[in-house]
Amino acid sequence: MPETVGFVGLGVMGRSMAARLLAAGFPMRVHTRTRSKASDLLRGGAVWMEDNAAVAASSHAIITMLGFPEDVEAVYFGANGLLARVQTGALLIDMTTTRPSLSVRIHEEAARRGLRALDAPVSGGDIGAREGTLSIMAGGREEDFNAAQPLFRAMGGRIVFQGGPGAGQRTKLCNQIAGFGSTLGACESMAFAMRAGLDPAKVLESIGAGAAGSWALSNLAPRMLAGNFAPGFMVKHFLKDIRLALEEAQILGMQAPGLSLALELYARLEREGLGDQGTQALFQALVNSKNT
Amino acid sequence: MPETVGFVGLGVMGRSMAARLLAAGFPMRVHTRTRSKASDLLRGGAVWMEDNAAVAASSHAIITMLGFPEDVEAVYFGANGLLARVQTGALLIDMTTTRPSLSVRIHEEAARRGLRALDAPVSGGDIGAREGTLSIMAGGREEDFNAAQPLFRAMGGRIVFQGGPGAGQRTKLCNQIAGFGSTLGACESMAFAMRAGLDPAKVLESIGAGAAGSWALSNLAPRMLAGNFAPGFMVKHFLKDIRLALEEAQILGMQAPGLSLALELYARLEREGLGDQGTQALFQALVNSKNT
Repeated sequence: MPETVGFVGLGVMGRSMAARLLAAGFPMRVHTRTRSKASDLLRGGAVWMEDNAAVAASSHAIITMLGFPEDVEAVYFGANGLLARVQTGALLIDMTTTRPSLSVRIHEEAARRGLRALDAPVSGGDIGAREGTLSIMAGGREEDFNAAQPLFRAMGGRIVFQGGPGAGQRTKLCNQIAGFGSTLGACESMAFAMRAGLDPAKVLESIGAGAAGSWALSNLAPRMLAGNFAPGFMVKHFLKDIRLALEEAQILGMQAPGLSLALELYARLEREGLGDQGTQALFQALVNSKNT
Repeated sequence: MPETVGFVGLGVMGRSMAARLLAAGFPMRVHTRTRSKASDLLRGGAVWMEDNAAVAASSHAIITMLGFPEDVEAVYFGANGLLARVQTGALLIDMTTTRPSLSVRIHEEAARRGLRALDAPVSGGDIGAREGTLSIMAGGREEDFNAAQPLFRAMGGRIVFQGGPGAGQRTKLCNQIAGFGSTLGACESMAFAMRAGLDPAKVLESIGAGAAGSWALSNLAPRMLAGNFAPGFMVKHFLKDIRLALEEAQILGMQAPGLSLALELYARLEREGLGDQGTQALFQALVNSKNT
């Protein structure tokens, strides 16, 4: 019988990831701040736990999928936190995109307590989570990564061990850095097309498949042109990742001109009340911009 | 028998494009500043002309593939220029990436003289030119575009009429704007991976196929990681296009934060003597950067 899996954090991503594990036959113990978000999982056989400590005490592996580094800090290091309450030998897997140094601290504290820990953030969005095709980028000890493979395979399509503690997080930040560039390119190029009086759909036909091509141009540009700014990925979450990456670039002592621009542009969108829109909202700002 | 085609400007791109036309059976008249660049074409049956005026006088359609807007200006408007020397009814096709307003001027002057003109810049690089798979973005009168189809089909795989005079140029600028974004993303993300001590090839495995994916990440990142900075597309030519796009954004009164950053970063590379390297040279600058 497979080991019991605890899951903490049932937002849009976490809910779908937990559902994949449940469908794969793992007995599940779940908790999240808003119980109603667990209802589908509970109907499917997951067991509700009253708090994180109860999840910790009853599971062999615990997966967390939270919001901000502060949430991760509280859930792991709080008085009733996972690190204090988990069974000896348990495997803690944080799949939140968070601060690499926080992942390192979790690893260190886990090791001190005879526990195992992995950082394993994902990309692929809500669709990848639902379909079990996420890209999972893992950091920690390779033997723990190998032990987690059955869990990862239930959730991911591309599962890569990236190195020691924090390497999963740093890889995810690479993903966000590349993603910002191509999103900027798609938004600015489509805004330019509109302002120049071109037919942006025809422009996409000319430029989408060549050396300027990107996932953003193929997937986000048609949404922006249709006036669809619903989030695949929210401005406010992107901004969190941009700040984490900039912080890390600072620690590494390297220049990150793209990230600096990303912070400027996306912080402005959030100030303008667009934090809950998708990252393609940048198009709107540029198409309406005035160069004075 | 197909009509005679003149070709002016036999650089890396022009040479391959003229070779495709020759292979498609068009009788060719050619001229370029350095005669040796025409030798393969002449062996293949193209006829050398002593100057542009001689090309103009002996061809029904004349294609130009030049370097900078100043070159286009001289070749079209000079005393011995194409506009003055071409046969009545001839079709002038400028495939150089140049200033949209210059394309508009050529169209206007051509119309005044009973000639036809198209702007038809391309993307797809030296490989696309050799293989005849270029993306051709055309502006002008649609009937002239239709007349040019047999020529375009010999050189291009994706051939789209984008609108009136200058629309081809503006579309090409959209291509460069999107291309800068994804190139920046690829360079900065790989530089971050290196500086963070990750294995960049593994990082590419995790991030290359998802929402951060782009042609630049798939094609330029492996080159930069292999220390290959040979040009697919040269820094100095990219810089020309960035300046043209910024100039146009200024005319349109829109903000173009990506283009402003592109100018800053690529002008710095050129000042550092990297003008003849490929656009992926930005990776080198970032990976070696210090954040003081």
